[in-house]
Amino acid sequence: MNILILNGPNLNMLGYRERSHYGSETLVDIENLLRTTFPSAVFTFFQSNHEGELIETIHDAVKSGAYQGFVCNFGAFTHTSVAIRDALAMVEVPKIEVHLSNIHAREEFRHTSLTGAVSTGIIAGFGSRSYIYGVQALFDIASSK
Amino acid sequence: MNILILNGPNLNMLGYRERSHYGSETLVDIENLLRTTFPSAVFTFFQSNHEGELIETIHDAVKSGAYQGFVCNFGAFTHTSVAIRDALAMVEVPKIEVHLSNIHAREEFRHTSLTGAVSTGIIAGFGSRSYIYGVQALFDIASSK
Amino acid sequence: MNILILNGPNLNMLGYRERSHYGSETLVDIENLLRTTFPSAVFTFFQSNHEGELIETIHDAVKSGAYQGFVCNFGAFTHTSVAIRDALAMVEVPKIEVHLSNIHAREEFRHTSLTGAVSTGIIAGFGSRSYIYGVQALFDIASSK
Amino acid sequence: MNILILNGPNLNMLGYRERSHYGSETLVDIENLLRTTFPSAVFTFFQSNHEGELIETIHDAVKSGAYQGFVCNFGAFTHTSVAIRDALAMVEVPKIEVHLSNIHAREEFRHTSLTGAVSTGIIAGFGSRSYIYGVQALFDIASSK
Amino acid sequence: MNILILNGPNLNMLGYRERSHYGSETLVDIENLLRTTFPSAVFTFFQSNHEGELIETIHDAVKSGAYQGFVCNFGAFTHTSVAIRDALAMVEVPKIEVHLSNIHAREEFRHTSLTGAVSTGIIAGFGSRSYIYGVQALFDIASSK
Amino acid sequence: MNILILNGPNLNMLGYRERSHYGSETLVDIENLLRTTFPSAVFTFFQSNHEGELIETIHDAVKSGAYQGFVCNFGAFTHTSVAIRDALAMVEVPKIEVHLSNIHAREEFRHTSLTGAVSTGIIAGFGSRSYIYGVQALFDIASSK
Amino acid sequence: MNILILNGPNLNMLGYRERSHYGSETLVDIENLLRTTFPSAVFTFFQSNHEGELIETIHDAVKSGAYQGFVCNFGAFTHTSVAIRDALAMVEVPKIEVHLSNIHAREEFRHTSLTGAVSTGIIAGFGSRSYIYGVQALFDIASSK
Amino acid sequence: MNILILNGPNLNMLGYRERSHYGSETLVDIENLLRTTFPSAVFTFFQSNHEGELIETIHDAVKSGAYQGFVCNFGAFTHTSVAIRDALAMVEVPKIEVHLSNIHAREEFRHTSLTGAVSTGIIAGFGSRSYIYGVQALFDIASSK
Amino acid sequence: MNILILNGPNLNMLGYRERSHYGSETLVDIENLLRTTFPSAVFTFFQSNHEGELIETIHDAVKSGAYQGFVCNFGAFTHTSVAIRDALAMVEVPKIEVHLSNIHAREEFRHTSLTGAVSTGIIAGFGSRSYIYGVQALFDIASSK
Amino acid sequence: MNILILNGPNLNMLGYRERSHYGSETLVDIENLLRTTFPSAVFTFFQSNHEGELIETIHDAVKSGAYQGFVCNFGAFTHTSVAIRDALAMVEVPKIEVHLSNIHAREEFRHTSLTGAVSTGIIAGFGSRSYIYGVQALFDIASSK
Amino acid sequence: MNILILNGPNLNMLGYRERSHYGSETLVDIENLLRTTFPSAVFTFFQSNHEGELIETIHDAVKSGAYQGFVCNFGAFTHTSVAIRDALAMVEVPKIEVHLSNIHAREEFRHTSLTGAVSTGIIAGFGSRSYIYGVQALFDIASSK
Amino acid sequence: MNILILNGPNLNMLGYRERSHYGSETLVDIENLLRTTFPSAVFTFFQSNHEGELIETIHDAVKSGAYQGFVCNFGAFTHTSVAIRDALAMVEVPKIEVHLSNIHAREEFRHTSLTGAVSTGIIAGFGSRSYIYGVQALFDIASSK
Repeated sequence: MNILILNGPNLNMLGYRERSHYGSETLVDIENLLRTTFPSAVFTFFQSNHEGELIETIHDAVKSGAYQGFVCNFGAFTHTSVAIRDALAMVEVPKIEVHLSNIHAREEFRHTSLTGAVSTGIIAGFGSRSYIYGVQALFDIASSK
Repeated sequence: MNILILNGPNLNMLGYRERSHYGSETLVDIENLLRTTFPSAVFTFFQSNHEGELIETIHDAVKSGAYQGFVCNFGAFTHTSVAIRDALAMVEVPKIEVHLSNIHAREEFRHTSLTGAVSTGIIAGFGSRSYIYGVQALFDIASSK
Repeated sequence: MNILILNGPNLNMLGYRERSHYGSETLVDIENLLRTTFPSAVFTFFQSNHEGELIETIHDAVKSGAYQGFVCNFGAFTHTSVAIRDALAMVEVPKIEVHLSNIHAREEFRHTSLTGAVSTGIIAGFGSRSYIYGVQALFDIASSK
Repeated sequence: MNILILNGPNLNMLGYRERSHYGSETLVDIENLLRTTFPSAVFTFFQSNHEGELIETIHDAVKSGAYQGFVCNFGAFTHTSVAIRDALAMVEVPKIEVHLSNIHAREEFRHTSLTGAVSTGIIAGFGSRSYIYGVQALFDIASSK
Repeated sequence: MNILILNGPNLNMLGYRERSHYGSETLVDIENLLRTTFPSAVFTFFQSNHEGELIETIHDAVKSGAYQGFVCNFGAFTHTSVAIRDALAMVEVPKIEVHLSNIHAREEFRHTSLTGAVSTGIIAGFGSRSYIYGVQALFDIASSK
Repeated sequence: MNILILNGPNLNMLGYRERSHYGSETLVDIENLLRTTFPSAVFTFFQSNHEGELIETIHDAVKSGAYQGFVCNFGAFTHTSVAIRDALAMVEVPKIEVHLSNIHAREEFRHTSLTGAVSTGIIAGFGSRSYIYGVQALFDIASSK
Repeated sequence: MNILILNGPNLNMLGYRERSHYGSETLVDIENLLRTTFPSAVFTFFQSNHEGELIETIHDAVKSGAYQGFVCNFGAFTHTSVAIRDALAMVEVPKIEVHLSNIHAREEFRHTSLTGAVSTGIIAGFGSRSYIYGVQALFDIASSK
Repeated sequence: MNILILNGPNLNMLGYRERSHYGSETLVDIENLLRTTFPSAVFTFFQSNHEGELIETIHDAVKSGAYQGFVCNFGAFTHTSVAIRDALAMVEVPKIEVHLSNIHAREEFRHTSLTGAVSTGIIAGFGSRSYIYGVQALFDIASSK
Repeated sequence: MNILILNGPNLNMLGYRERSHYGSETLVDIENLLRTTFPSAVFTFFQSNHEGELIETIHDAVKSGAYQGFVCNFGAFTHTSVAIRDALAMVEVPKIEVHLSNIHAREEFRHTSLTGAVSTGIIAGFGSRSYIYGVQALFDIASSK
Repeated sequence: MNILILNGPNLNMLGYRERSHYGSETLVDIENLLRTTFPSAVFTFFQSNHEGELIETIHDAVKSGAYQGFVCNFGAFTHTSVAIRDALAMVEVPKIEVHLSNIHAREEFRHTSLTGAVSTGIIAGFGSRSYIYGVQALFDIASSK
Repeated sequence: MNILILNGPNLNMLGYRERSHYGSETLVDIENLLRTTFPSAVFTFFQSNHEGELIETIHDAVKSGAYQGFVCNFGAFTHTSVAIRDALAMVEVPKIEVHLSNIHAREEFRHTSLTGAVSTGIIAGFGSRSYIYGVQALFDIASSK
Repeated sequence: MNILILNGPNLNMLGYRERSHYGSETLVDIENLLRTTFPSAVFTFFQSNHEGELIETIHDAVKSGAYQGFVCNFGAFTHTSVAIRDALAMVEVPKIEVHLSNIHAREEFRHTSLTGAVSTGIIAGFGSRSYIYGVQALFDIASSK
């Protein structure tokens, strides 16, 4: 199973600070955790602080048809990017939105999810394990078809 | 590990209709699925269409200290009950809010979660698997301490 | 024709006060009026001040398939209960929402109808006759099929 | 009993389209239905797409005192016309607002009723039968005095 | 001095009812009062319940240049008609908005004045004397140039 | 003097936690405090986490006429229950709304009081003494008549 | 006839600037204009930039009963002072609110009038003549009783 | 190709004033321009300041089926008329909404288009050329089928 | 115990009018009532219609440390004064906000309390007895430490 | 005539999906269509999913002065980008905003156009022909000077 | 250079408390700091807790023309006083609004600045240095002319 | 002292137009001005129209710890970018937000500052001098520790 893991702005800085919200692991730790947890999966990891790069990575994935599922943490773009939402709406394979922290327990402007509205499901509040549950969900959806 | 699974209004009707939103399994199917998936866990299942019974079940759990974790799907009360939120705020063990459907992809009045704001994390959109990921999260949180 | 007449909170107090809004009859008067007016109908009357009991009465009706129509006056729950709305949305037979007073002529928080949005039609402002028109509507809908 | 039946904009087009909302009868069908159903009533039917004509027909009725009741379907003006509301507020005989479709189940801008707030009662969602219940209500109100 | 007195919907019904808001005089009484009070003025009186007629009367006045001033009471259209506002914005002579009642002391939807925003001044709350002060203002503006 | 003390959801949990908001006493402590402070009063204490039970206790009190005053702390229902408000509006003896904490100093959704709008007065922020002042107010109102 | 003319903040600066909104006369010019125009009236003029002084001047007038009418231009306090509104609500003689400029044609925060809602009438947009019409209105109200 | 060109309130006054918003041509100029530009089209021009006449012209067109396309500039009614929107929704041939000025660059209450939401497309900001592009669009749509 | 009793705008007019909201006593009556009821307390009474004087009286009290408690009725300033709120926030001794009438049962703009949000507690709706309960609360808080 | 055609996020994916909204052509098809339709024009085509690249392309065009007109479809950035709006405000040649679909007929968050407010005109709802009308408008504006 | 330093409510209490927001210096410390830092400037310092006194000090300054610049910290009045805004709008010399704390990082009702909208510039968040930068700005503006 | 000067979208175009808002200098002029004014500081200048580049420049600065302070003008991103706000929140050295124009005196959507809420202070309205005061603030903060 080929899985695309998309991470948005500031997630490359995981481990630097604001640990109460985002946990203490780095993004590389999370990537390794996923590879270890799901040895049968082939992961492609992409992080960007550029809205346009995230959009184009989604475009490439749509055009190549290379992935059977997406796990996406668009960070702050979750709440502001209609453009990513429009790109994501083109994706026909399952796409799981994940967040390290519980967005409903933070500032009010983080309660809205533009991108979650076009996703298959949402998982928030479990630190790096949010990603694991996201990937697990992709496997489960695939096996239930 | 003792786990309390709380289900709110109309969830006893799972399998009757509106399957596009809630999946086709019954609540008993979900209970059996959890027991099968997590044989080492001791589950207490409680469903109620009465706000007051859900509140009191939470109270009893707080007073007895009998559970190491909660998985809660408060259904429509998620969006309207300050009273359940106040009860849930007393719970000190991990409490995971789950939804069968992706609440962000439905009517706008289902985008708000009063109870999610005092929960550990939220999982929505995976049908009965939302519960499995919720229980898995409880195990993971316990083992990470 | 089997008809379920559902009445919500405070309607058991009809005849006690606030007559300018709700008329001077008691709920038993209304029940007798319906039996007298529609001798061929078999009525089941249920009043509750408990949201959960109203929900479960709807559930039982959905499961039994015992009724050919509903007439519902959910009182204050009309404006606040997403849970009753969700239950009512499962009902496939005609369901008529009635109100004794004209809700559009009262406080602004009574102008919204969460439950009316999933009902067949709404009748408001005719005192006990609102129920008669509601039952009449059920007969008319049945005979027009 | 002399009854004025007022119909607002686009109701002359009944039977042409949007049947899911408005039913398949024409306005003449509804008029005939009312005459047949209530042979003892003397109906005056007036339809206009002009707000001013509706206002002036109400004025004439107020000045002549010729009617014992009104049944009004102001169509789109229900939601926008303060001027018709002001005219209707002068009417002292019972006035019943009717709608073919259930306005609470349509677009949000159709949930408000400026004219309903100064009417005796509201009946919505029963197709042409909404008019019949409206006329019946006028008879019932008259006989209950 | 040629003056156009414009009256909007329902003002032809003055003297019929709702006297607490609108005073007890008829519109003819007001017209006579103005003629008596200002014998040197030439008045043109126009009342209409039709938005379109009011617009076209304004158009004719703009094209003819026949008037040195307007006194306008657009009634309910004050609060809802962008079209009259657009017509009135073409008028280059002084235009005074008058109201019989104090619109700030009534329902909230009467506090806004779309037409007042393009008028020279506003006078409200003095019954028929609002018109007298309006005409007096036109004379005073003329003599102050 | 017969006094009904009504307590709403979660107040049975007083003393368990969130002491900064609600004080450290249990509800039984408060009941004893009231009995000790006002030995001449006959208290009936009723706490419920069920909206319907609170409504019906108010109904019974209205019908029996057994009480000369109410002291009510509806907890979270203060902010959400139109149904309790409707029940309380039937009560003709003095009814005092009390809160342990100062609701104006907490989350914004606790600033509104649906039930306070139909109460005689409101006392908030004094812990268990809020109840004492509430009962004292009932005595003072009685003696001032 | 004894008349109190109240002027609020910044009106002592009339003639200094912002003439497009407020006209070019000074407040003394306006006072002289009123004395000249209404020789039979006895005017008391009071201007203050202090909310409290305006309130107390209203109090003194209420207690002395010395005036048969008020003309008030509360300037910026028109839109913000609940305290002046409360004071003005005690005044039982006619009270006319005047503004030099048309408040409906300026910034949106000047469209609201807290004080106008408890006044007899409002006159705005006629420069110093707004005061003359205000005084004239007092005479007319007096003579019409 | 038979084309109906509908113009709403105040558009008969084109060329009189407010040229910065509406251009300097008259409506007749625009009509001639269209005839000259599209000699093969048969145009019916209809302008009205009466909402009801616009509605009825649409009704007649729907009933006759005489037109292959509409170009509509409803002026101020664009932003306020639910009744025209309801009429326009019955039109099954292409209908193009045009505006002389760019409505997004004017007052905020002109940014909404009730009628545009049920139109095929919108063209705004090109003066009389907005109409030409609208007619051209009708031809293009026809030829692309 | 030294207690500062602060009264805001218009409270010096108690006894003059609007008795349904504010009771029939004068402010001197209330002061005497407090002295009589609490003979052991030393009261300082200060009433002002000037926001600035209230602020400075609070400042002086903060600087002198002369009082063990405050009872404050800021009248209309309760709802509008951020400046008094900022002053009150500096007060470290208990401060009780009182109102003669039940502010939740009046106009909506009186439901908000800027100053109550930084007070210890709020008591409203008991006429002059609101002050007595306020002082009693100060004694109780002092004795409970 | 040198014309810059700017396309924003996701427009490079035209032809892939969501054809009901965006038509079935690819962006290259549209470019060829424009070249074929307007052989005398020199087109520069630029599409980007990066807000910054669109801004800088506008900057370069402003600095070079190389273009006599712009046709812009900023896609999702239309509704969210103040930065592109600020760049576009620097453009002094005509700039036409185009959309493939009718933005007024889609989700409410697509009804706002930040960039349209600083454009010459807007054309929406005609698929690829929106671009043709946009270019035609540039030619017409040029020839009318 | 003559400079007027205006300070609003509660700023005389600097140094007493809430140091996290306002710094630990007293207002006299700030005055001395300014005199020391800018020996060539002639400062006039005025602090008041009375809105009216601040307004009149601005009036006097406008009339005397004695100052070449203003530095203003209106404290809580920044967010509520239209009257000070109106006074400040008359000032034609540069006027710099300063705040000790960063108003954008505090409660939402402190994010708005009525007075800042008519000031030359705003400086917030630097404690007493905000004043220094404000005075420096006055010198720089003067020297750049 | 090493200082990072960050400039957001469109600021590279300074000097081209809209000089009333932004002043007439180019960004290079501002950079030279800063170097000349603060010869002891080591400046790093970075301007970008790409949100992602600004975020990553902040990241690099956080990781390198190379700077003792930031001066940031995020232009239009000030009002829309949650992602830059999140990046900026990681910065522990002082960070001053500057604007050339007074954002409170411009369109309402420029009154909000997402980034200012996580900055040390804000300086707006002084053209290029805003930057000078920002750098000066960094020196002052450093020397005051």
